Amino acid sequence: MQIANIEKMKAFSSEKMKKTNLFNTDRMLTDLYCFEPGQFQKPHAHGGEDKVYLVLEGEGVFQVDEEEETLSKGSAVIAPAGSIHGVANHSSEPLLCLVFMAPLPSHAKAHKH
Amino acid sequence: MQIANIEKMKAFSSEKMKKTNLFNTDRMLTDLYCFEPGQFQKPHAHGGEDKVYLVLEGEGVFQVDEEEETLSKGSAVIAPAGSIHGVANHSSEPLLCLVFMAPLPSHAKAHKH
Repeated sequence: MQIANIEKMKAFSSEKMKKTNLFNTDRMLTDLYCFEPGQFQKPHAHGGEDKVYLVLEGEGVFQVDEEEETLSKGSAVIAPAGSIHGVANHSSEPLLCLVFMAPLPSHAKAHKH
Repeated sequence: MQIANIEKMKAFSSEKMKKTNLFNTDRMLTDLYCFEPGQFQKPHAHGGEDKVYLVLEGEGVFQVDEEEETLSKGSAVIAPAGSIHGVANHSSEPLLCLVFMAPLPSHAKAHKH
């Protein structure tokens, strides 16, 4: 039984936002994204994968295409395939997000476990 | 921008565990499952969809095939396609889980929004 504990798996990097993989299958990816204050995920797009972010701790500014919203713990947002999306932690506290992508992006296939 | 707020969307039913849909695309489903004490999701299997459960509040007993684990807030578990999986709230508190499935199961296609 594959179980992941967020508290045990959360990990930050002083260099840039840190991604930790929880689960990968051929159909989906589950990651934990940890942002220190000031860190960000640069806006980008995936041609064929949808992504859902769930804020677990803290507060972040989420962009999907032309829109931006500040979301805090307990909010989720979807970035459909093709949309330009990114996240920035402009707060003074850490930001933790759970991230689901489907299907598994090709860059993650080498890391499937 | 499609945003969902867990606190606003959580909903219970005295009859049985309640599912509330957050996001559906052709590639994935995101649901909130709310269990009152004593409620459960009967063990079942999906031939072609993987499912991830994340416990947001409370504590539940999660089954994947022959294994059972009691998981609480901040734990996640994956039920791969084909596995028999279910959840039961044997505690005296409500249980809230976020659920991701990929790809979108056929029974949900009528409800895509």
